[in-house]
Amino acid sequence: MLFDQIDKLIETALREDISNGDITTDAIFDKDAKAHGKYIAKEDGVICGIDVVKRVFEILGGEFEFTPNFKDGDKVKKGDVIAKIKGDARTLLSGERVGLNLLQHLSGIATATSLAVEAVSGTDTKISDTRKTTPGLRLLEKYAVKVGGGSNHRFCLADGVLIKDNHISACGSITKAVEKAKRSVPHTVKIEVEVESLDEVREALAAGADIIMLDNMSNELMAEAVKIIDKKAITEASGNMGQKNLFEVAKTGVDIISIGALTHSVRAMDISLKFKV
Amino acid sequence: MLFDQIDKLIETALREDISNGDITTDAIFDKDAKAHGKYIAKEDGVICGIDVVKRVFEILGGEFEFTPNFKDGDKVKKGDVIAKIKGDARTLLSGERVGLNLLQHLSGIATATSLAVEAVSGTDTKISDTRKTTPGLRLLEKYAVKVGGGSNHRFCLADGVLIKDNHISACGSITKAVEKAKRSVPHTVKIEVEVESLDEVREALAAGADIIMLDNMSNELMAEAVKIIDKKAITEASGNMGQKNLFEVAKTGVDIISIGALTHSVRAMDISLKFKV
Amino acid sequence: MLFDQIDKLIETALREDISNGDITTDAIFDKDAKAHGKYIAKEDGVICGIDVVKRVFEILGGEFEFTPNFKDGDKVKKGDVIAKIKGDARTLLSGERVGLNLLQHLSGIATATSLAVEAVSGTDTKISDTRKTTPGLRLLEKYAVKVGGGSNHRFCLADGVLIKDNHISACGSITKAVEKAKRSVPHTVKIEVEVESLDEVREALAAGADIIMLDNMSNELMAEAVKIIDKKAITEASGNMGQKNLFEVAKTGVDIISIGALTHSVRAMDISLKFKV
Amino acid sequence: MLFDQIDKLIETALREDISNGDITTDAIFDKDAKAHGKYIAKEDGVICGIDVVKRVFEILGGEFEFTPNFKDGDKVKKGDVIAKIKGDARTLLSGERVGLNLLQHLSGIATATSLAVEAVSGTDTKISDTRKTTPGLRLLEKYAVKVGGGSNHRFCLADGVLIKDNHISACGSITKAVEKAKRSVPHTVKIEVEVESLDEVREALAAGADIIMLDNMSNELMAEAVKIIDKKAITEASGNMGQKNLFEVAKTGVDIISIGALTHSVRAMDISLKFKV
Amino acid sequence: MLFDQIDKLIETALREDISNGDITTDAIFDKDAKAHGKYIAKEDGVICGIDVVKRVFEILGGEFEFTPNFKDGDKVKKGDVIAKIKGDARTLLSGERVGLNLLQHLSGIATATSLAVEAVSGTDTKISDTRKTTPGLRLLEKYAVKVGGGSNHRFCLADGVLIKDNHISACGSITKAVEKAKRSVPHTVKIEVEVESLDEVREALAAGADIIMLDNMSNELMAEAVKIIDKKAITEASGNMGQKNLFEVAKTGVDIISIGALTHSVRAMDISLKFKV
Amino acid sequence: MLFDQIDKLIETALREDISNGDITTDAIFDKDAKAHGKYIAKEDGVICGIDVVKRVFEILGGEFEFTPNFKDGDKVKKGDVIAKIKGDARTLLSGERVGLNLLQHLSGIATATSLAVEAVSGTDTKISDTRKTTPGLRLLEKYAVKVGGGSNHRFCLADGVLIKDNHISACGSITKAVEKAKRSVPHTVKIEVEVESLDEVREALAAGADIIMLDNMSNELMAEAVKIIDKKAITEASGNMGQKNLFEVAKTGVDIISIGALTHSVRAMDISLKFKV
Repeated sequence: MLFDQIDKLIETALREDISNGDITTDAIFDKDAKAHGKYIAKEDGVICGIDVVKRVFEILGGEFEFTPNFKDGDKVKKGDVIAKIKGDARTLLSGERVGLNLLQHLSGIATATSLAVEAVSGTDTKISDTRKTTPGLRLLEKYAVKVGGGSNHRFCLADGVLIKDNHISACGSITKAVEKAKRSVPHTVKIEVEVESLDEVREALAAGADIIMLDNMSNELMAEAVKIIDKKAITEASGNMGQKNLFEVAKTGVDIISIGALTHSVRAMDISLKFKV
Repeated sequence: MLFDQIDKLIETALREDISNGDITTDAIFDKDAKAHGKYIAKEDGVICGIDVVKRVFEILGGEFEFTPNFKDGDKVKKGDVIAKIKGDARTLLSGERVGLNLLQHLSGIATATSLAVEAVSGTDTKISDTRKTTPGLRLLEKYAVKVGGGSNHRFCLADGVLIKDNHISACGSITKAVEKAKRSVPHTVKIEVEVESLDEVREALAAGADIIMLDNMSNELMAEAVKIIDKKAITEASGNMGQKNLFEVAKTGVDIISIGALTHSVRAMDISLKFKV
Repeated sequence: MLFDQIDKLIETALREDISNGDITTDAIFDKDAKAHGKYIAKEDGVICGIDVVKRVFEILGGEFEFTPNFKDGDKVKKGDVIAKIKGDARTLLSGERVGLNLLQHLSGIATATSLAVEAVSGTDTKISDTRKTTPGLRLLEKYAVKVGGGSNHRFCLADGVLIKDNHISACGSITKAVEKAKRSVPHTVKIEVEVESLDEVREALAAGADIIMLDNMSNELMAEAVKIIDKKAITEASGNMGQKNLFEVAKTGVDIISIGALTHSVRAMDISLKFKV
Repeated sequence: MLFDQIDKLIETALREDISNGDITTDAIFDKDAKAHGKYIAKEDGVICGIDVVKRVFEILGGEFEFTPNFKDGDKVKKGDVIAKIKGDARTLLSGERVGLNLLQHLSGIATATSLAVEAVSGTDTKISDTRKTTPGLRLLEKYAVKVGGGSNHRFCLADGVLIKDNHISACGSITKAVEKAKRSVPHTVKIEVEVESLDEVREALAAGADIIMLDNMSNELMAEAVKIIDKKAITEASGNMGQKNLFEVAKTGVDIISIGALTHSVRAMDISLKFKV
Repeated sequence: MLFDQIDKLIETALREDISNGDITTDAIFDKDAKAHGKYIAKEDGVICGIDVVKRVFEILGGEFEFTPNFKDGDKVKKGDVIAKIKGDARTLLSGERVGLNLLQHLSGIATATSLAVEAVSGTDTKISDTRKTTPGLRLLEKYAVKVGGGSNHRFCLADGVLIKDNHISACGSITKAVEKAKRSVPHTVKIEVEVESLDEVREALAAGADIIMLDNMSNELMAEAVKIIDKKAITEASGNMGQKNLFEVAKTGVDIISIGALTHSVRAMDISLKFKV
Repeated sequence: MLFDQIDKLIETALREDISNGDITTDAIFDKDAKAHGKYIAKEDGVICGIDVVKRVFEILGGEFEFTPNFKDGDKVKKGDVIAKIKGDARTLLSGERVGLNLLQHLSGIATATSLAVEAVSGTDTKISDTRKTTPGLRLLEKYAVKVGGGSNHRFCLADGVLIKDNHISACGSITKAVEKAKRSVPHTVKIEVEVESLDEVREALAAGADIIMLDNMSNELMAEAVKIIDKKAITEASGNMGQKNLFEVAKTGVDIISIGALTHSVRAMDISLKFKV
């Protein structure tokens, strides 16, 4: 795992939990005590975060052995043993909660994404995330979306242009906004335009938008927009997609459905860690 | 706001989103452009994070004026204008997403807590959080629980002893585990013991536990436990409380119901920011 | 050693000392040169910081072997060889001062604590530290106090309530201050009240204080207070205890004597490191 | 105050103490409560750290007014009001301990240095510190030594060469060690050599040492060494100088007496902060 | 200036230069001394870094007034007064070198870029930078390229795909590599392919590359490639462009010429700061 | 390599380049793919940064083997294979650019320094750097100067006094400025004075300057100054030395020629990394 953002997040989480030590565990177990435990799925889901859990204990720094039975992206059934861990009792008990918090959160996202992907199966539409991520967890949450079978939208405000109504009204028209952006941004990034009507669709297309975001459209309107665009730009459906019938949206022919709820309203997957000491 | 943890979190979130700049906004708006906007509740809820949103823009560093109509803990109705903001267009548009992500997350927690507190109204039972928080957000999430009317459990592993089954089996008995802990930990912290049967309740009480956690008990068993303990220790109900009828649990007479789902399975409150430029 | 605070402190100390290199050592020794040395006690004392010294060299990063003859908490006599070290001459000489500064400081605290503990031997009174620690070294200094046989007071302002005169006068009475605190703080923390008279002792006890701090009382007054409290709360003697006859204080029956001087007025234990190259 | 090291130290100290908040103060005082207090000297001494205390509250971030009656380096008498502070009760009470810990520590060093300087008054000898400082506090402690009337030795291993016995034995002779160092180090730094005999004195002088450290010499031997060196190099007396009669040492004519105990064995000056709320 | 990367860089630079203070300036000037100075161009060039210089002194923290006569992107002539500064002598002298180092470096880049842009004037070709930037200065250096009239290439490895020979040989063909990338990367990023022959040009075009990098081609070959591509993809000339006749390259019709030397081989613009005290 | 500054710089550079991942490499290569490559000199030069390149990949964290054929300071010819590397394809490709950027920059400095040293060969004059370094890279750049055969000037403003015209005019005379400095600074640092005329030379010498910087003097004047100083102080030639005939300057007899351009105007050495996958 190359990215130090994740180490930083784990360190922050450990610091929140045990910066002054785990006084219970230190009182009860001496340095040499050993323990072993099992991560057990308490419900069906898609696992995500196996390497992250391992990294938690590596950063904690004691001796331990972590043996996963599944890897990120695998589907598990209620009762499955996801992984085993054994080693220093102090390390295992002190790192337990931080590891679980991450594993349950990421598996919750992967599971929800997987359900959304299944909902549109049989169509060519892809499920994508947004920038509505939990502060500090963006990279991991976007990874969980990929693990769940989804694809990623922009990571940050520098790796893609997204022209919205404010930008348009500031410039006077979609055409002028796209022109202005093209002059200024690197030639390596795409221009996406958010539209709400068919007229806007046509203008965005004519202006040379690479991606057209169809925002809060009815499925009927969206289907027309897709026809107008006719593969000359990528089409993206957006706007409370977490509460829509995704299959119906997909049938409009949009390339991408982007869903903020995948990351802003996460239900943790129920996973427990049972120890023997 | 005294705590640098929150600044660090905001800085991390801004870095995720705009470390290399907001190329769209910088292309469209020049330095002097102004904008103003409104934070609007798209559903009923309890607001939390007003100061945090303001801090996001302070850390971003441009000129702006932020005028809240509500303060943390206030209940809002769908359609209410929560706050207004005006200032540099670049600052406002670049900080929009990070501010909203935090506001919606924290208001989601406050709202859920508020509902749980209402569910037990008429009883003496308090609603409490756990250490099942989102990595990096513990302090803010526990603040949101208080704002929603709940109370806080331990912040971290150093400010309270919680003796669980592993600790007990390592020592041989609850009695021995409590004794061992008392000898080692600061005299300023309380000893909590997790129990699952009435025998364990009695042993924990005799051993001098300050708090007894009644884990995964039926309401009937819990009521008996509360009677046995008879206010000689604080009683805490625990175990998937997010899925229980909280009023029924409260009627057992427990002092505290602690609910992991308050922070591990957050549904973002729907709040939008509409700009005029 | 799990806590990154200590790594951070060591890194800060190394940065202070060798951020731009050790120009003397680099000029004199080439990369391959080896050295070996002995840590020698120049006076009697209680050793603390053996793992910290080792960690200094690990963080420095060269090759070395560190062989302690004693472990933290052991008593040494003048002339004892505390530990041996051998390895890269550059590493050993560059890390020498930082390692010694920490070892001498912590052993100084452990030694002073050990003397205080001996002073009250034969009584049930424990010796405790305070929050009067050296900025940046709190966790290590509190560790040294435990190593010396003492026990710890609060780590920080979040893991215990301590109600002092200001808080009391702000609320109107001890009773009101305790009530106000109990409503607000986590149910997992204890309430301590600082008192100076027997009336205050009685009020604090009635208000349900978990710990009563007897501040700047004569031994006679303290003995009366202890009798009144009668084990219904923990008693703590405080106020320039570093200059008192601790045995006389202990004979009053207080549970705890807390001594700021253990950490705010440290005399480094005299330890030298003699190299052969 | 230009140096971010000091801000970093203060932030670390505040984080140790209040990273999860001051639950007592937050429970008792509401946001708008005001307080005022006085820093009072409980013994005679030299004040150091006035700006540091102020900086603690600035970093904490609330509103306050700090009015010093003395400045760093001033002598105070028992009972003197060193400074007044008024402002937000929460800010003042939360920052109280960190500010005092720093003020007492630095004033302790300044006071001890001042006594050493007085001890050699009437001679041309200067009192200097060493690198035996408290980890993380070097810059502040060396500042306190200057404030107390002393002068500073090397800040770190890169701003001066100090050739000791190990370096000498690695090279074969003082002469060779000095030559080797001169070839390698910047032309902007001085070469100091540690010697223990008159023969070594003569060799160091001939080799072109800029400073000659007379280590653990009797006063008689030192006087002879000073005569031999005859102002052709700076002379520095070293070796448990904290326990010597400094005036007798100074009478040997040495230019500098360097004393590790100034910073490794600090007695905090007794200063209290009394609040009114 | 929104981006904390730049503050971090400035802080690092100040720490390198004055972490233990500016002993000369502190010795000579007392706290209240004032000074004023002028930044003077010692040669013609394009100024870049005016706000950065100001930020250096803001971070240093003393009182000062900075009055620029030019703004970033302005051309200056030898002898022009670029800016004036007045304020605390200590602040001005301590921050002088760090401010100048940044101003001269960035103005050097802007000047070199400006010359390259002029070299292709009269054509539609743009001058672009690369990822061959000075470690730690990427954001600022890319800003300087824009200020000099150039445009930016990718900021980092996540905001654009660039398929090179290794990627191609690992996949078997350009076609397969492009397909594989399209399946995996966000739909918001463009695919660029590096080619060296006309056959590769045709294959990249057919595979749907958004940008085709013509690497180390002769101008004749490049002109043919541009004709084949015929605006269906963006064309980018690459390969030691710093040593080529840029006008001749531009005449091939390429959209972009990317030049590593703009940032990897910077000649500092000669700018001096003359003080009066 | 002991110094964490270098790790920090590498981490910053990696973060700039791959904080959100290398989407191209991750799309094309799976986790297990291997690659190997060669660092090839594309021109003659002096290599510097071999350990730094290795450290880049260590910090990235995958498996790899790095086999240098040369060490820092070795001269290489165009076409020489400087080092080989093999290991995880993802690690090698993701770290390629950061490693090369550092290696080329440092080798550029070492090569330029080496040429300057050769230019004065046959004289006793040394070539030295200045504080005109690239922000964030000072320690590495000064290391590269040493590797190229040069010597180092001050690292920072705390390890040497350099009295310039401002300091002199603030004090009234060179004599007074030197006196003032001597009273204040540690006895371990040298006093350097910048002079522009023979009168100033004489005054600096009389005042006891350790080093006299001859700034912007003609070679004739400099030769006279050197004669006047007559080895009683170190002489240093300064002022656009990068554009002078260094041998002619050296013939004046100055001890040191300090050249800002060595580090402020670096031309990267041309080095390529060719992979096989």
